[in-house]
Amino acid sequence: MGRVTRRHPVLRVEPGEAIRRSDTLAVEEPLEIRLNGEPYLVTMRTPGNDVDLVRGLLYSERIITKRSDIVLARYCAGSGPDDVNSYNVLDVTLAPQISAPAAVRRNVMTTSACGICGTTSIDQVLRESPYPSDPGSRVAAELVLSAPTRLREHQRAFDQTGGLHAAGLLGLNSEMVCVREDVGRHNAVDKVIGWAIEQRLLPLRHMILAVSGRASFELTQKAVLAGIPLLAAVSAPSSLAAELAEEAGLTLVGFVRGQTMNVYTHPDRMIWSANGQIRLQG
Amino acid sequence: MGRVTRRHPVLRVEPGEAIRRSDTLAVEEPLEIRLNGEPYLVTMRTPGNDVDLVRGLLYSERIITKRSDIVLARYCAGSGPDDVNSYNVLDVTLAPQISAPAAVRRNVMTTSACGICGTTSIDQVLRESPYPSDPGSRVAAELVLSAPTRLREHQRAFDQTGGLHAAGLLGLNSEMVCVREDVGRHNAVDKVIGWAIEQRLLPLRHMILAVSGRASFELTQKAVLAGIPLLAAVSAPSSLAAELAEEAGLTLVGFVRGQTMNVYTHPDRMIWSANGQIRLQG
Repeated sequence: MGRVTRRHPVLRVEPGEAIRRSDTLAVEEPLEIRLNGEPYLVTMRTPGNDVDLVRGLLYSERIITKRSDIVLARYCAGSGPDDVNSYNVLDVTLAPQISAPAAVRRNVMTTSACGICGTTSIDQVLRESPYPSDPGSRVAAELVLSAPTRLREHQRAFDQTGGLHAAGLLGLNSEMVCVREDVGRHNAVDKVIGWAIEQRLLPLRHMILAVSGRASFELTQKAVLAGIPLLAAVSAPSSLAAELAEEAGLTLVGFVRGQTMNVYTHPDRMIWSANGQIRLQG
Repeated sequence: MGRVTRRHPVLRVEPGEAIRRSDTLAVEEPLEIRLNGEPYLVTMRTPGNDVDLVRGLLYSERIITKRSDIVLARYCAGSGPDDVNSYNVLDVTLAPQISAPAAVRRNVMTTSACGICGTTSIDQVLRESPYPSDPGSRVAAELVLSAPTRLREHQRAFDQTGGLHAAGLLGLNSEMVCVREDVGRHNAVDKVIGWAIEQRLLPLRHMILAVSGRASFELTQKAVLAGIPLLAAVSAPSSLAAELAEEAGLTLVGFVRGQTMNVYTHPDRMIWSANGQIRLQG
């Protein structure tokens, strides 16, 4: 994981002085994904867990729908300067029954076929979603409130750089199952979901997805497609994220900070503390 | 601009109670861009200044290189439910000499042809950049330190939602020339650069670009292509952003907070205060 951060000289300016020193930056590098040897797309990402990233990305794109749809994934040798392996080109062999789409030039994610208004985008996700919402997957409010702190404990590269997003799968039993960091927040989510596919854990009925930043339509879509019952974001959701969550039966929580949070959709999933500390109003 | 924010019901949870109320969310909606009537890509964005967004995006993609390369841009009528105009499909007529590329399914931005390692990506930007770096464009340190506060003054929708990125062009004369907010930080930058192209202001030798978040390779590329001498980010840059800035002669500043900042590249462009308040060390 040495490629997750890199040292860079910096002039640190403080009141009255400027000091030359070295700073640690989050590494961003292109990853070229090939499907059956053909270029598919290039995405910027933080190196590490690339196979999980690609698995999660292809799953969100609905190019694959299950673990066995990928037969082999390997870095192409000789793809860097001087014929050394750059570890930036990953060739994925798909199962014979999977048809590889035409090349796109960049991660298309959630917007691949989204149409002309928000409703079209939401309808597409609902149509493609393999797991119907399960109202039975209930989540303790305390677990959600603890999610950012739990995530933060695992953000080792963020501690050094301040420049990485994180995503984590937090079990309903309070176990933090998988955390990934990346310069792209969609990549961080793809990495944890790709990991869960590899571990044969889908649908993720017994986990919540915690993200370090905002909740966009794209991240919400990824949660829905993985069968996750609740998405907890440290910052704000977008309007379309809330609308998709409402339609898909996902509980969307934003601004999870300290002992406060905003539950935007499906608050019925939440289990309030048994000792009655929280009183519902309004 | 009523579509920039939208009300959504929320259950606000605070210690000991949960209150039903209404919250303001940043609007996220798909925008389909058509070139000469043919679908080109769909991107998620906050509605508003769509023509500037598309102009900036096509410029960063090097599909257009000047204002007159776009002959006409108009919303397609009847593209929403019930045949009403959704204002989410924008058809761009390119000048006859411009060849429209094949459709992509999403904003390809900076990574359109970036290759297999960071160096490839940087080389491509340098090759495509129409404006060589101008060491003569010097910037006062005080101006850079003031950038986040100046930007924040114009972030009206962020004040309501906490869910929008912002980008601003700040003149070397300290005038904030153009500020745009969007759920996508690349969109916010495209909107201000697209505006500057419309105003015939390129190269932007006398402005700095201020952004509310992190500085990625993509945002750095957009600054370089617009001839901007300095990029000031409130948060961290990525490794590839710093490497591109170094090669392209851009001054990249991160963690601009209060009276402190980190100058990652080309500190020689900075003018320190005349009264000698800042002493260079090391």
